[in-house]
Amino acid sequence: MIKKQLFSPGPTPVPERVLLAMAGPMMHHRDPGYEVLFQEVREGLKYVFQTKQEVLVLASSGTGAMEAAVCNTLSRGDEVLVVRGGKFGERWGEICEAYGVNVTPLDVTWGQAVDPGLIKKALDAKPAIKAVLVQASETSTGVMHPIKEIADIVKNRAGTILIVDAISALGVSDLPMDQWGIDVVVSGSQKALMLPPGLAFIALSAKAWGFAEKANLPKFYFNLKEELAVAQKNQSQFTPAISLIVGLREALKMLKEEGLENVFKRHALLARATREAAKALGLELLAPTAPSDALTAIKAPEGVDGKKLKKNFEDQFGLIIAGGQSQLKGKIIRIAHIGYFQSLDIIQAVSTLELVLKGLGYPVKLGAGVKVAEEILSAA
Amino acid sequence: MIKKQLFSPGPTPVPERVLLAMAGPMMHHRDPGYEVLFQEVREGLKYVFQTKQEVLVLASSGTGAMEAAVCNTLSRGDEVLVVRGGKFGERWGEICEAYGVNVTPLDVTWGQAVDPGLIKKALDAKPAIKAVLVQASETSTGVMHPIKEIADIVKNRAGTILIVDAISALGVSDLPMDQWGIDVVVSGSQKALMLPPGLAFIALSAKAWGFAEKANLPKFYFNLKEELAVAQKNQSQFTPAISLIVGLREALKMLKEEGLENVFKRHALLARATREAAKALGLELLAPTAPSDALTAIKAPEGVDGKKLKKNFEDQFGLIIAGGQSQLKGKIIRIAHIGYFQSLDIIQAVSTLELVLKGLGYPVKLGAGVKVAEEILSAA
Repeated sequence: MIKKQLFSPGPTPVPERVLLAMAGPMMHHRDPGYEVLFQEVREGLKYVFQTKQEVLVLASSGTGAMEAAVCNTLSRGDEVLVVRGGKFGERWGEICEAYGVNVTPLDVTWGQAVDPGLIKKALDAKPAIKAVLVQASETSTGVMHPIKEIADIVKNRAGTILIVDAISALGVSDLPMDQWGIDVVVSGSQKALMLPPGLAFIALSAKAWGFAEKANLPKFYFNLKEELAVAQKNQSQFTPAISLIVGLREALKMLKEEGLENVFKRHALLARATREAAKALGLELLAPTAPSDALTAIKAPEGVDGKKLKKNFEDQFGLIIAGGQSQLKGKIIRIAHIGYFQSLDIIQAVSTLELVLKGLGYPVKLGAGVKVAEEILSAA
Repeated sequence: MIKKQLFSPGPTPVPERVLLAMAGPMMHHRDPGYEVLFQEVREGLKYVFQTKQEVLVLASSGTGAMEAAVCNTLSRGDEVLVVRGGKFGERWGEICEAYGVNVTPLDVTWGQAVDPGLIKKALDAKPAIKAVLVQASETSTGVMHPIKEIADIVKNRAGTILIVDAISALGVSDLPMDQWGIDVVVSGSQKALMLPPGLAFIALSAKAWGFAEKANLPKFYFNLKEELAVAQKNQSQFTPAISLIVGLREALKMLKEEGLENVFKRHALLARATREAAKALGLELLAPTAPSDALTAIKAPEGVDGKKLKKNFEDQFGLIIAGGQSQLKGKIIRIAHIGYFQSLDIIQAVSTLELVLKGLGYPVKLGAGVKVAEEILSAA
């Protein structure tokens, strides 16, 4: 018998009460009961996004909302600056290019955070740049980019907006959209919101809505101006993913009950315990200086195949973690602690790491990582 | 106590075994178990679409797949013919216009089917027309358009494809994509596929894939060529709506168990019983000559407010039906029998119709509609 458990940075485990809520009979999205539910969801999303703006809900994966961010704020031939420090940074560039938006890439070594000074330099060199596109947490490397510092650079430039992919950052680390002056925040359901995939979220600042007035890229399903108009009446343009929205209400309740600040503290603690445990086992982190609290990327040690490591996590202990993508294939493993995770989950992950490494012949002192993790959890 | 029951043409009731399947713990879409599941789903979709082509699965509502049909087969400035006989016909036009595709509308009185002869005439008059866009079942009016006859006109024109919105027709009436030579078929999850909303489906003929090679409209999330490449490896470009796909496997199993031919017969029977019962009550059908078997649109009788009729269905008996949209607001009610419906469900709907009409002072002979419905069901 092997219990399968998700330790992947999306999809993440869905709490039982959310699963139960979604298992109820289908309701109709034009029903008064649904409008009450959606009103509650809208309030909850504003709380999690830390914004007074409307948070729009799309029936799509997170990438749909990334595309919506681009095609609703930009026009053909516009110049943008794209921070490319991982697979999802590259995706920003690919979306822009698909729409004929000119990309100036700012390439960052995978595993490192972008230097905000380079963003300032790029904007000074090319004042025509209309948007800076970046990840908050780059899921492919486990890096947290310095969003506050970047927002400080962008917010006083009238002709430039900051578009942030917060798919694996929202509900993990503090990212106060309004306070920091982020113009577009994008997220998805299958991360810290503890839901199945299938919903995406996007909020725009007043400045970004101004850009939306002039943006001429074609759009229909992802037309945010139209969506905004109906969302404020607790409706949606097209049939919403009703069951997921029913689950969303439950997940948002859970986050509200815990309190956003405690949610951030929990993620920070679990992330720190995971990182320190890995280091105690003599392992190297991919992102030692700017780690995301959503997941921990660990380099496969010399002589150990990262793919085999990932496979043994699942085959021997049922833990589904992630491997490396693109240039990092086979070189890292990624252990998630985003969403429905508590301290003992981390102990399981660290214990599995020890057991699997030992099984692969890597010289590991059993219990050494767990000890460090327990010390951190115990002190907290 | 009022049991709420969906009699709306989307969302439709979700069978208990599908709800249970979706309530299981979240799985990972890169897991070998998911690949087996998705392989099964792909086979099942080909069976329901009656095609050898790949049926692509998108995480979006049906409108997303409609947009995908347009932006993957057409280019800016292309000419298309759009059959506009209801709200969803209008939507085809709106999507094309959003992308700078030139629409020649073929307006049809709401409640009537398009005359295929007019399509032939329009194509002869403007041979540059690259696509004919039409609904199979127009959900806003309950009309079934003559797709086979339209396909016969389009299929021998090398420069024109037929794009069919089968959102409320697939799994209801026979629509053999390959045999009839339909080029693009679009559908959604929350209709005859008996699932919550959140998935859309699209299949392209070889001819349509040829058009896709030359189409230059921008797309990223809905890029079907990219999706095809990964679908054939049981993967998806972006995180799929996993829980809905788990439910889809169960729903497809149910359709397979019943057999597509029996599914069509069941829908035809329930639709006929509903229509004849309404007529027996002295009511007029909106689409008497070309009714869809997905839903029955009934005109609110003289002196009875359609909105009040719909409201009383729900408030007094818990039946959630649909009203009229746009120009039909307040003028019709729409009772669905698409998806998870059996004969006794129709008896409930007809009985409610009688009771609600009587309550509103309309001279109805109680039991007269039910009698006719029972006679039809009994003879079958």
